[in-house]
Amino acid sequence: MHLTEVPEPVMGSQDVLIKVLYAGVCGTDLHIWEWDSWASNRLKPPVTIGHEFSGVITAVGPEVAVDGLVHVGDLVTAEGHIVCGHCRPCRTGNAHLCTRTRIIGVDRDGAFADYIAMPATNVIPLKDIPPDVGAVMDPVGNAVHTVLEGGDLTGSTVFVLGCGPIGCFAVGIARAAGASLVIASDLNPTRLEIAATMGAHVVLNASTEDVVSRVRDLTDGDGVDLVCEMSGHPTGHAQALAAARIGGRVNLLGTPSRPTEVDFARDVIFKGLTLYGVTGRKMYSTWIAMQQLLRNAQFDPRPVITHRFPLEGIEEAVAVIKEGKAGKVILEVGT
Amino acid sequence: MHLTEVPEPVMGSQDVLIKVLYAGVCGTDLHIWEWDSWASNRLKPPVTIGHEFSGVITAVGPEVAVDGLVHVGDLVTAEGHIVCGHCRPCRTGNAHLCTRTRIIGVDRDGAFADYIAMPATNVIPLKDIPPDVGAVMDPVGNAVHTVLEGGDLTGSTVFVLGCGPIGCFAVGIARAAGASLVIASDLNPTRLEIAATMGAHVVLNASTEDVVSRVRDLTDGDGVDLVCEMSGHPTGHAQALAAARIGGRVNLLGTPSRPTEVDFARDVIFKGLTLYGVTGRKMYSTWIAMQQLLRNAQFDPRPVITHRFPLEGIEEAVAVIKEGKAGKVILEVGT
Amino acid sequence: MHLTEVPEPVMGSQDVLIKVLYAGVCGTDLHIWEWDSWASNRLKPPVTIGHEFSGVITAVGPEVAVDGLVHVGDLVTAEGHIVCGHCRPCRTGNAHLCTRTRIIGVDRDGAFADYIAMPATNVIPLKDIPPDVGAVMDPVGNAVHTVLEGGDLTGSTVFVLGCGPIGCFAVGIARAAGASLVIASDLNPTRLEIAATMGAHVVLNASTEDVVSRVRDLTDGDGVDLVCEMSGHPTGHAQALAAARIGGRVNLLGTPSRPTEVDFARDVIFKGLTLYGVTGRKMYSTWIAMQQLLRNAQFDPRPVITHRFPLEGIEEAVAVIKEGKAGKVILEVGT
Amino acid sequence: MHLTEVPEPVMGSQDVLIKVLYAGVCGTDLHIWEWDSWASNRLKPPVTIGHEFSGVITAVGPEVAVDGLVHVGDLVTAEGHIVCGHCRPCRTGNAHLCTRTRIIGVDRDGAFADYIAMPATNVIPLKDIPPDVGAVMDPVGNAVHTVLEGGDLTGSTVFVLGCGPIGCFAVGIARAAGASLVIASDLNPTRLEIAATMGAHVVLNASTEDVVSRVRDLTDGDGVDLVCEMSGHPTGHAQALAAARIGGRVNLLGTPSRPTEVDFARDVIFKGLTLYGVTGRKMYSTWIAMQQLLRNAQFDPRPVITHRFPLEGIEEAVAVIKEGKAGKVILEVGT
Repeated sequence: MHLTEVPEPVMGSQDVLIKVLYAGVCGTDLHIWEWDSWASNRLKPPVTIGHEFSGVITAVGPEVAVDGLVHVGDLVTAEGHIVCGHCRPCRTGNAHLCTRTRIIGVDRDGAFADYIAMPATNVIPLKDIPPDVGAVMDPVGNAVHTVLEGGDLTGSTVFVLGCGPIGCFAVGIARAAGASLVIASDLNPTRLEIAATMGAHVVLNASTEDVVSRVRDLTDGDGVDLVCEMSGHPTGHAQALAAARIGGRVNLLGTPSRPTEVDFARDVIFKGLTLYGVTGRKMYSTWIAMQQLLRNAQFDPRPVITHRFPLEGIEEAVAVIKEGKAGKVILEVGT
Repeated sequence: MHLTEVPEPVMGSQDVLIKVLYAGVCGTDLHIWEWDSWASNRLKPPVTIGHEFSGVITAVGPEVAVDGLVHVGDLVTAEGHIVCGHCRPCRTGNAHLCTRTRIIGVDRDGAFADYIAMPATNVIPLKDIPPDVGAVMDPVGNAVHTVLEGGDLTGSTVFVLGCGPIGCFAVGIARAAGASLVIASDLNPTRLEIAATMGAHVVLNASTEDVVSRVRDLTDGDGVDLVCEMSGHPTGHAQALAAARIGGRVNLLGTPSRPTEVDFARDVIFKGLTLYGVTGRKMYSTWIAMQQLLRNAQFDPRPVITHRFPLEGIEEAVAVIKEGKAGKVILEVGT
Repeated sequence: MHLTEVPEPVMGSQDVLIKVLYAGVCGTDLHIWEWDSWASNRLKPPVTIGHEFSGVITAVGPEVAVDGLVHVGDLVTAEGHIVCGHCRPCRTGNAHLCTRTRIIGVDRDGAFADYIAMPATNVIPLKDIPPDVGAVMDPVGNAVHTVLEGGDLTGSTVFVLGCGPIGCFAVGIARAAGASLVIASDLNPTRLEIAATMGAHVVLNASTEDVVSRVRDLTDGDGVDLVCEMSGHPTGHAQALAAARIGGRVNLLGTPSRPTEVDFARDVIFKGLTLYGVTGRKMYSTWIAMQQLLRNAQFDPRPVITHRFPLEGIEEAVAVIKEGKAGKVILEVGT
Repeated sequence: MHLTEVPEPVMGSQDVLIKVLYAGVCGTDLHIWEWDSWASNRLKPPVTIGHEFSGVITAVGPEVAVDGLVHVGDLVTAEGHIVCGHCRPCRTGNAHLCTRTRIIGVDRDGAFADYIAMPATNVIPLKDIPPDVGAVMDPVGNAVHTVLEGGDLTGSTVFVLGCGPIGCFAVGIARAAGASLVIASDLNPTRLEIAATMGAHVVLNASTEDVVSRVRDLTDGDGVDLVCEMSGHPTGHAQALAAARIGGRVNLLGTPSRPTEVDFARDVIFKGLTLYGVTGRKMYSTWIAMQQLLRNAQFDPRPVITHRFPLEGIEEAVAVIKEGKAGKVILEVGT
């Protein structure tokens, strides 16, 4: 893993070329940086990593015929999942589940570079969204997907279990969506502080508090309407199922590395629970909702962005994330 | 129409008896007061009018077996539609459309009295909702039904067309539900002021402004996601259909007194619009959402309550409403 | 557990008294018959068991005011869950999850008797549904709930995993709902024969076939849109999660007696699955759909009814069920 | 309007070239043939008309990278709405409402020709659907959109008002979707015969019968769950609103040429109706459902296809449609 000169990306006739301004560093990038078993099985080097970014369009392919929508000079971000457009998921609003998905920075060249080529239809104009915010819309979109899947949250109670950057974003999204009570838990006090800043009514330190009891106490004994499971730990799963109210919902985003024991009778069937697995961002209803929230200042992800480095500082960026002292870390690539 | 001594209401074995504290005055009550053609056809006097109220339970029927839920001394309000519980609407979440509905204050004795008897299942505990607020939960519920029917409003644009009390409530509910932009229109400047106080981002005086053009200008030319039609005027209908965006929604609550010409091809079919007729409150999903919003201070209807009179002042209450200077008017019955 | 003379049930003022004609024998009744740990913890004898029945109304309580809907002489069945009507689940279309539910034949006297008293609102008129069919509408309703929860099945693929009586009903319901392909699996050839009779396009014997591979082969490698998990076995859970397509749904009705290991990353999150726990019947949308299907001959549960005994033959009924040779067994109580 | 030699269409790099086998003749084509005011305002000749077709792929653009999905030799049909892919409707599952839509045979060259070029993502493989059926999937899709929008129809009652080809298709789709009762009306006995062949339980001749009374009689006085308004006549609108049950739904596809008077209070608000305007086909959930129904023989549109002509016989095709003696008419272009 190193910085090197790479040629400018090749553009298709329906692509745009984007000069990268900012790029976000994601847990996925850490896996790649450390070349773990997932990374060594999935990536076929050389590949430029990085899938969260914003930039400015510098060229538009000859068959990008959507005049008025995509121009040289536009500030943009992009959905990093490039999908086939033909399969059943793609054709039923579930393109985020396309099995032919090629992810930038994983399956094809990504955003930790001066330039990136993207299909024009993956591009999202920023308009009045600042470009540093644009660089984190990919993970904000994960939070929007997790929080909004399951219907209207107006007056609802939400428990965000795990306060990494996406969890902290989820707190703010739940507030913007009209939740009455947002509870957040984590083991890390720094993350809980960020969650509180993002609007959590109550933060629970899972290392010292009985999280499930506290959630029940805060909800008249009922449990919450929606749990956003962001931890990916079997302990988190157990808490998530126990903290959801009868008839409630658990949306699971955190990726566990091992199986969980589930008592389906007690925790799912008799409770009438709904569980939903969250992958990526809905293409593109998630983006439309997110754009509205960002443009109208209903949600501001910037308190979660704790560190900014130049592209050359990526090693330091990785270090600060691994120390657990960071919220979101972004790279100032071309600013 | 007059104040007189009436006997205490007769309770069924699954009813509760409620001492009335506050009662709201509704447009329906004005129709009855003036004994117009609707009133003289529908009501069979003598009947005590009034269907919006709060009070305290003074007796519980012998077969009200829900210990822990309904007690003597509880502060409560109630859904004023007493439904059959057997028909298809009642059995599919649409009890507000039960054709056997008996409305308190219209079809049976109502709340402009010292006491009212209600089926225990119609009763809604106020807990920490103030009793003057409890007295307007019936019309607030109309607003909740109108605003929330159609799915999640997070980041959406809403146009409230008509700013009577329910319209003004709708403005605040749309804000609480996470709308990005709430536009309100009326011909009456007093009402527009209240709408602004309730959180409308923009208020439009329909007597001096081109409402549809303004709505389009405020939404990048698209029109809004949701129109809440509260005026009941054919002009309002025309504006509503024109102000909704392609693929948008018009929820109609205002009751027109005459037919409207609709260009279904241009305004509904080619736009892919959804229209929905709003009656009453969903029993009881509307109430659950409303309770959450009120208890957690996400919505406060009190700026809409402009006048308060004793029960004996009902004549004055009617007068102030007819002058068009009032928002919501409530009667202090038993306080 | 024995047959004995019991007094006629006491009726409340909003109850009806029903002379029992037919009663279904359910797995729950077997647990009670054998007085296992669940039964001995839950039941407080003496209690008349039996919760699936049909009958004729012989008396109507004095406050049952729904003229035209419930009369002496009506052939009826009933929802056996008597709920509080006040709690959040009851008020949001989820009364089947009311924590104050009292189940007939478990928490209060049931249907293996000459007479049963029921709240009038729990009663479902049979009209032209035959009374033997009426006696199995409780478990048919479990199947309707399981099959229809998750949206329109038109053109969908469905896998019914476990072909006890409810699984066999589910096969027929899925066909009636417009499924394109219904696959059923079980270990018991008798049950698979009934499933085939009910309309399964393909039946798989799980003792000799690789169920997941077969399901994938039958669906172009994709897996099915909906799995109805009726087995309650951890092996069934694993097959259910594996047999569902990406973006699909698993509705779980079978009650497991021990926990299951779930690989949430592989089987739920990356697949974008939805899981839903099924309890009882939706009150009363499930019943409305079921009535329509039965009245219009779109679904006929009778091929699943393999044995009929007099009430005195209950011991024999239990025996035939335990031998695994039966579909649904009903008792001819008062015919 | 005439047949002439035209050059082979120009393909983009993500297009495919299709040799046309069959093409359907649509009412739109008649408007163009007669060069009415709509046609003369919308079309910019020379343009090849025809938007319903099937064919075989003869060339694939160099950037169509979906190996395994689109090949030379594939039998296909196509969605004829070519949309921008960038706008809010396109990005929220409503691409059928994209304002930048270019319709083949109207805004760009269509299918009454030997060859047509289409974007690869608009192409729908026929697999085992016969190519003459493939040629009518565009209007079948209109019917699928109209019938399935509004949720599960299992056990529902449906009234198809207007039995042109799309109405007749709607009858069969409603049956396949599990409707309990499908009623169809028209003024034309030929069309009613086709509707009956497609599975209508009852056909009503609107010239001799009181359609609304008959619908109510057939539904215990309630009216139907869903009205599919296919006539586009103000009389049809009035019948549609009156024939829908309380809490029901009216999906409007027929395009009226003049406004309708609507009594919103009586017909929409007090009834709690939902109205929905149908344009095109949902891209692509409509197509996915339709493919399933056709491939599994749950729906067969061929009884509606009453006439077949060679491309040179288009004048005769137009004549037979105008005489009102035809169902669907298709052209055998390249067979």
